[in-house]
Amino acid sequence: MSNIFFKNQGPFKISTLLKLLEVKINEIKKDFDIFDIKDLASSTENDITFFHSKKYKNFANKTKASFCLTTETLKSELPKSCLAIVVDNVLVSTSKITSLFYPDSVNDDFDETVTSIINSKFKDKVIFGKNVLIGENVSIGVNCKIGHNSILEKNVVIEDNCSIGSNNIIRNSFIKNNVKILDNCVIGKHGFGFFPNKKNNLRYPHIGIVIIEENCEIGCGSTIDRGSMSNTVIGKNTFLDNQIHIAHNVKIGQNSIIAGQVGIAGSSIIGENVRIGGQAGISGHLRIGNNVEIGGGSGVIRDIPDNTKVMGYPAKNIREFLRENK
Amino acid sequence: MSNIFFKNQGPFKISTLLKLLEVKINEIKKDFDIFDIKDLASSTENDITFFHSKKYKNFANKTKASFCLTTETLKSELPKSCLAIVVDNVLVSTSKITSLFYPDSVNDDFDETVTSIINSKFKDKVIFGKNVLIGENVSIGVNCKIGHNSILEKNVVIEDNCSIGSNNIIRNSFIKNNVKILDNCVIGKHGFGFFPNKKNNLRYPHIGIVIIEENCEIGCGSTIDRGSMSNTVIGKNTFLDNQIHIAHNVKIGQNSIIAGQVGIAGSSIIGENVRIGGQAGISGHLRIGNNVEIGGGSGVIRDIPDNTKVMGYPAKNIREFLRENK
Amino acid sequence: MSNIFFKNQGPFKISTLLKLLEVKINEIKKDFDIFDIKDLASSTENDITFFHSKKYKNFANKTKASFCLTTETLKSELPKSCLAIVVDNVLVSTSKITSLFYPDSVNDDFDETVTSIINSKFKDKVIFGKNVLIGENVSIGVNCKIGHNSILEKNVVIEDNCSIGSNNIIRNSFIKNNVKILDNCVIGKHGFGFFPNKKNNLRYPHIGIVIIEENCEIGCGSTIDRGSMSNTVIGKNTFLDNQIHIAHNVKIGQNSIIAGQVGIAGSSIIGENVRIGGQAGISGHLRIGNNVEIGGGSGVIRDIPDNTKVMGYPAKNIREFLRENK
Repeated sequence: MSNIFFKNQGPFKISTLLKLLEVKINEIKKDFDIFDIKDLASSTENDITFFHSKKYKNFANKTKASFCLTTETLKSELPKSCLAIVVDNVLVSTSKITSLFYPDSVNDDFDETVTSIINSKFKDKVIFGKNVLIGENVSIGVNCKIGHNSILEKNVVIEDNCSIGSNNIIRNSFIKNNVKILDNCVIGKHGFGFFPNKKNNLRYPHIGIVIIEENCEIGCGSTIDRGSMSNTVIGKNTFLDNQIHIAHNVKIGQNSIIAGQVGIAGSSIIGENVRIGGQAGISGHLRIGNNVEIGGGSGVIRDIPDNTKVMGYPAKNIREFLRENK
Repeated sequence: MSNIFFKNQGPFKISTLLKLLEVKINEIKKDFDIFDIKDLASSTENDITFFHSKKYKNFANKTKASFCLTTETLKSELPKSCLAIVVDNVLVSTSKITSLFYPDSVNDDFDETVTSIINSKFKDKVIFGKNVLIGENVSIGVNCKIGHNSILEKNVVIEDNCSIGSNNIIRNSFIKNNVKILDNCVIGKHGFGFFPNKKNNLRYPHIGIVIIEENCEIGCGSTIDRGSMSNTVIGKNTFLDNQIHIAHNVKIGQNSIIAGQVGIAGSSIIGENVRIGGQAGISGHLRIGNNVEIGGGSGVIRDIPDNTKVMGYPAKNIREFLRENK
Repeated sequence: MSNIFFKNQGPFKISTLLKLLEVKINEIKKDFDIFDIKDLASSTENDITFFHSKKYKNFANKTKASFCLTTETLKSELPKSCLAIVVDNVLVSTSKITSLFYPDSVNDDFDETVTSIINSKFKDKVIFGKNVLIGENVSIGVNCKIGHNSILEKNVVIEDNCSIGSNNIIRNSFIKNNVKILDNCVIGKHGFGFFPNKKNNLRYPHIGIVIIEENCEIGCGSTIDRGSMSNTVIGKNTFLDNQIHIAHNVKIGQNSIIAGQVGIAGSSIIGENVRIGGQAGISGHLRIGNNVEIGGGSGVIRDIPDNTKVMGYPAKNIREFLRENK
């Protein structure tokens, strides 16, 4: 979870973390410094990790983390070097610890740090409209344009030759060369991820960012949420039409074409050279292969292999769909 | 129709109302004052009411109103204390009278009364961004934030601890404690309600408001229309994702979760603890029970009882949907 | 292609055009002036035209153009007066030539020419909000209102009695009398039209405009793209609800009613007095007749004759749909 935008507020003492979780563990004799919270595979001995599903057993066996948030059932999978911290709800506890290390990643209130671009270092470098606002930790390359009323909130990198239209709000995003973003988009806000809870849902942190690769175009009124634990990525030369919603952690390959009002739910992975017709929807956590064509209005609820054309709700092979609907 | 936001311009003489409707009634000997237009059940003897469908016969029998807009066929259902005013189109006539009493409820032009928050009483109380505008009859509680370019047009109550993002436009709305509204939303505009008419559709008044209860979150680019004769209500701790459209008079229960690009048509009532997947649509005037789950992409065209999972277009029991679509 | 908004930069020498296309043609002895690029039917002897599909054979036979971009296979259809310029990809070449004649029609970067309405000739004529911006070549009729943060970019005509809400961005559009545009709309940007190309898609010019006829209403958060070679037209007294997307070249007849979140793909022609339910989608290049009703959520993938009610995905006769889905 090394992160270019969200500042790690650690290290914290393990005793601090346990107090936050309202957990007592007698085996802990020394009050270690914990430097970060990472997933099972990327943790080092200075980190705490989390293990909430059997699916990740093979990563759990080999984790290098010294501490792991987990359940009574799963804890036997951890190596001896990793002490299990048994909690009622692993994801809620992970959320609490991540919020401690990265407090900025939970709060998506408007950015109070912005100032007018006229008072910024970009005033002679960028072609800009009226009422453009720039937050902290923003960089902008050469030959860029930023339209009226657009707000680059904190943590934005814009490379060279980019055209940002008017009324856009961007934060926690990395926008590469030659990207065009039209108007009225919101890019980099947290995703729709939280733990449902009677009376008061609990938001979990989103420490991922949005990456828009070279030569992309993003249509008017689109929303692209940043990732929770990984990034949301739009591949090179992929074009999005108007009013599209891309949820957190989604990754779209290069040279893809996505028509108006499409929605892609969280954590789905879309291949290269994929074409998606207007108003199609793709459920979360799916894998859509390369060179796939998805007909307009389709509802995709299963993975789709490479080189396939589908249509329908639920989406099926397009020949079958057309035969059944002559 | 007592109303916290729309000012009643009455009373009006009954002769004024009849002239407006181009109706003559010889039975009226005295020129009464009429104080309000209300529905059959809540009218008093000082009010005018309307009766346009047999469905409301039981209310019509007992109305206390002294006058009632109705048809030749229906008028016999009214009590003797209530004089029928027979018109060609009851709803059009109701619309005309309501517009007279509540002229502000028809006109949704931009609010010319706003001033910069810097010149308002809120300047030391609220944390606010650049270019924030505040209309007449706005109140804001403690510990609130209002982002850049957001406009609180006339008739808005915001309670405590609310976070309003940037580029929002809000009017005729009551926003309770701890609500978050992200960016680019339009809340409280009139609904898509009018009488179709060749050459020039006739808008009817919207004297309802939008009520967003405690702890709700409203995603980016969403639109929530105010009600026509009743309010549009989002229940406590209900979370809406991005690009959602909630039409006029819709009521959503507490603890519900509604994913991106969902649309709910006018006057539908959604229960508590309901989950609606992305891009699902719900037709108007339906009742969706408590603890209902609606799969992404579904098109709901019938009522759904409590504790039911549905999917498909038209939506059916989810087991049936999945069995038919293996 | 005479055009009220996009200025023709011609004439150009035929030698200039051939150089741009990297084509050599020995038959051309004299370096003619070419005044415009037009379609087969409307070209004159001073113009260049294009012919890319057998469908247009009957127009090709009779074209008056002196030069025609076409293929080896098709060139024999041209009259002797028209010299074939054989190219690899007719549409890409047409795009290149059109971009030369109409360079403004490719570039949809934000409009740098705008100034505050306070400094414009409209300041005493129009009722306007805060931060309203006006570009070059804009005209506004009497009794109009323009809301906060709205931007009339270059090439906009607004006739009389129009109400434009807040946060709108409009360019290349002709808005007739008594039109209401609510908030957060983007009207007149180029459509989602380009030649897919590995690494770098090639945008083609959009020299059409958006025409919104008298008495229309456009809901919040809608996008209406301008046409590529023809105009996008919303007919008289047609009402659009919120979050609607109208793609390039679409034409909608008068007195139609289109509910929230509907999407209409490029070049489809919708008749008069058509009603479209919420979230319905209409594929590109279709013809929808007069007096058609399309149920909410429908996906229309075929033409629909006059006086028909359809529903479903794909949309079929509504009786059939309801019988199959009892």
